[in-house]
Amino acid sequence: MTEVEAKKPQESLQDRLAQVIELLHRHKLVEGLTHRQEGQHQDLVESLVHRQNLAELQRKLDDLHPADIAHILEALPLDDRLTVWQLVKAERDGDILLEVSDAVRETLIADMDDHEILAAAKDLDADELADLAPELPRDVVHELMESLDAQQRERVRSALSYEEDQVGALMDFEMVTIREDVSLEVVLRYLRRLKELPGHTDKLFVVDYDGVLKGVLPIKRLLVNDPEKQVGEVMADDPVSFHPDEDGYDAAQAFERYDLISAPVVDKNGKLIGRLTIDEMVDLIREESESEVLSMAGLREEEDIFASVWKSVRNRWAWLAINLVTAFLASRVIGLFEGSIEKLVALAALMPIVAGIGGNSGNQTITMIVRAMALDQVSTGNTKRLLRKELGVSLINGILWGGVIGAVAYGLYGSWSLGVVMTAAMTLNLLLAALMGVLIPMTLARLGRDPAMGASVMITAMTDSGGFFIFLGLASIFLL
Amino acid sequence: MTEVEAKKPQESLQDRLAQVIELLHRHKLVEGLTHRQEGQHQDLVESLVHRQNLAELQRKLDDLHPADIAHILEALPLDDRLTVWQLVKAERDGDILLEVSDAVRETLIADMDDHEILAAAKDLDADELADLAPELPRDVVHELMESLDAQQRERVRSALSYEEDQVGALMDFEMVTIREDVSLEVVLRYLRRLKELPGHTDKLFVVDYDGVLKGVLPIKRLLVNDPEKQVGEVMADDPVSFHPDEDGYDAAQAFERYDLISAPVVDKNGKLIGRLTIDEMVDLIREESESEVLSMAGLREEEDIFASVWKSVRNRWAWLAINLVTAFLASRVIGLFEGSIEKLVALAALMPIVAGIGGNSGNQTITMIVRAMALDQVSTGNTKRLLRKELGVSLINGILWGGVIGAVAYGLYGSWSLGVVMTAAMTLNLLLAALMGVLIPMTLARLGRDPAMGASVMITAMTDSGGFFIFLGLASIFLL
Repeated sequence: MTEVEAKKPQESLQDRLAQVIELLHRHKLVEGLTHRQEGQHQDLVESLVHRQNLAELQRKLDDLHPADIAHILEALPLDDRLTVWQLVKAERDGDILLEVSDAVRETLIADMDDHEILAAAKDLDADELADLAPELPRDVVHELMESLDAQQRERVRSALSYEEDQVGALMDFEMVTIREDVSLEVVLRYLRRLKELPGHTDKLFVVDYDGVLKGVLPIKRLLVNDPEKQVGEVMADDPVSFHPDEDGYDAAQAFERYDLISAPVVDKNGKLIGRLTIDEMVDLIREESESEVLSMAGLREEEDIFASVWKSVRNRWAWLAINLVTAFLASRVIGLFEGSIEKLVALAALMPIVAGIGGNSGNQTITMIVRAMALDQVSTGNTKRLLRKELGVSLINGILWGGVIGAVAYGLYGSWSLGVVMTAAMTLNLLLAALMGVLIPMTLARLGRDPAMGASVMITAMTDSGGFFIFLGLASIFLL
Repeated sequence: MTEVEAKKPQESLQDRLAQVIELLHRHKLVEGLTHRQEGQHQDLVESLVHRQNLAELQRKLDDLHPADIAHILEALPLDDRLTVWQLVKAERDGDILLEVSDAVRETLIADMDDHEILAAAKDLDADELADLAPELPRDVVHELMESLDAQQRERVRSALSYEEDQVGALMDFEMVTIREDVSLEVVLRYLRRLKELPGHTDKLFVVDYDGVLKGVLPIKRLLVNDPEKQVGEVMADDPVSFHPDEDGYDAAQAFERYDLISAPVVDKNGKLIGRLTIDEMVDLIREESESEVLSMAGLREEEDIFASVWKSVRNRWAWLAINLVTAFLASRVIGLFEGSIEKLVALAALMPIVAGIGGNSGNQTITMIVRAMALDQVSTGNTKRLLRKELGVSLINGILWGGVIGAVAYGLYGSWSLGVVMTAAMTLNLLLAALMGVLIPMTLARLGRDPAMGASVMITAMTDSGGFFIFLGLASIFLL
């Protein structure tokens, strides 16, 4: 990526987005007029205004940082998005493609021909190419690989050989390496000859003649120490480093904990093969928490907010179908007690309260546990203690709120035994919610699954069926 | 904060946590034995073993980075947490307090006397003191302020005058400033005299004699340019900067977009008053997404996973109470149709399906919208277009899944008209879910509230009451 020094934006991003939309609308308005009017003269005027609007929009876009353009593209519906995309200078396409979300990237690439894609990709680094490659047409990737030198090609291949969220796929190759037996003065002169340093260079990597990492020289130390000193005296010789097959999210947590800016990646022989930088890690932290939120709600993946209806339907399909099955089961539970309901129709009106409160309480518990698991604060070993606490919370809430709603039921239907059954059922269903809220994510984790996966759908299924069964069961025994 | 060069941990954090727990358990076991046995000799032996275990634990802790100890403290139940906390060397207390979550920090401070707190806080910087101050006893804060020099005291006061998530409360004061009319050579010599540079120094701040920010000199440029050049020639003169009253989360998004490591904070006259660093921003990004997840589920704030039952009850109280009211309303809706249910008891069994699928689908929509709003991708101006898309998705899902469940209802109860009513009710309730899933967060945002606030509880309330009303209403009209 060519580096752009970010300048202080004159307006907030929201304002700039609003301006782009405004210009787009003016452009469309004029386009509409041109189509409707036939007169030669008007045509000419309109098309002039039209061109002026586009030119103004283009100037606006040229001033923006690639990340800002990416943001604007994500916030625009498809037709506007493509209008803007066509106005962006070709040489910036690559940088912008790297910044947009996967869902939006797909729509942009679909709009480009092979020639444009090749032009956009030719200035990218090996790690950036590897990021884009899976979404590019096969023959374009082939052509791109041909154009690389052997080392670059090897790097792209290596990056592609790792899973998307492994360190090996996240690292870049822009390391500045030095030897330990030279003086800082020599290092300073060497850097000056480089003319430019890679982004996020807060440390230099010290390697021996075989490329094995011996330590790192933080730039801070390079600057404050006597230039006569040797690198070996000043360097940190036991730095935090990563292996390419480590989980990227673990690395991101280490970056967060140890306040790292960059860190070396070494192979199993200790040879330096790449580096991780904080910007990739920040993206990962954000993506991880996003995917947690989405998967709890039963969405398969990040959705382009302006995706087509069909795409959205497919994204939400799976968990809705599962929900259909669980809702059907809950309905069958009620079906078991149709006789009771016929005798005492109040049961039909009261049963959703028991189920609903259980669902809400269970969602609170499961959200807590999933979060704590994502932060590595709890493991399957803590199960018992957490269960005790959550059951305690449920017992209090059940007796308290169950008591309130029991009193209300008594007031409405004038039956104190109905009130008692209501209180008992609420308490029992809240206990069930606590039990399941702890056990579902713990069990998913033990099975090696994502503990957040459809958590909300599953806990609601449990508390619905469970709530109906408990309430109608107790009512059938004690009231009829 | 004293800076600690992070070393490559020998084991994963999970392993280290497991080791600490193991040592704690051995310690407790021995303690238990000592209490039970009376013999003089045994006592001596046990207490020796006991002391050995604690010594081993202490050695282990001394090796760990403050951030790792913070993590371990967060993952331990209260009694174990305090045992470990007492073993930590007093001079590290301050650093660790800064790293733990608010909820856990409270438990640690409650365990310290004023003298210990003063000792822990005395080495902290002004911005760090301001972070801790709100949670410390009043007279301790007073005593701490007394011990500071005038500039430091002023800085603490200034930091405390901003809201928790404003830039003014997040910035630190560790800026290295230079003048623009000196050569890079002079700057290099100046840095060498400083002996140590603040963490995250990727740029120096160029100010004039009044302290007004003129530009920034990235360390990268300092290193690669000819030392004879003047700072003014090499610096970036229009850097991204922030104001102290800006929203911290907006700043964090700018850090993410422009890949910043540090950035200057200036007052309204352009005077440099502090700096933001990426580590604070990463914490903010994580906290923001956490609070989004929690507030969607109706949890008031981050909860110490091992908090007392009472504390947890209070944290979850508010939304459970609201849920109770909404569940009661849903129950009253059913109450309106008790006559219909008495005539056709199948309605009681089928109605939760309509409500449940609506709730799930509504949660998917609201999760999408809340996320997109947090990322500034949608504004209240997009409402119409998003509504159209979500209604489209719902229509398809309603006809499709509603058709399936209508067929099942026909199969179960042998009434085709019941099946048709079921399909129609499902479709209408899914449309309602889409409508509310878009309108609830948009309306909250328009009212200046957090769009995620209790989103899940509110959408479920709508789809429950709405679902019952639609289904039972249609059934009463067409089936009875």
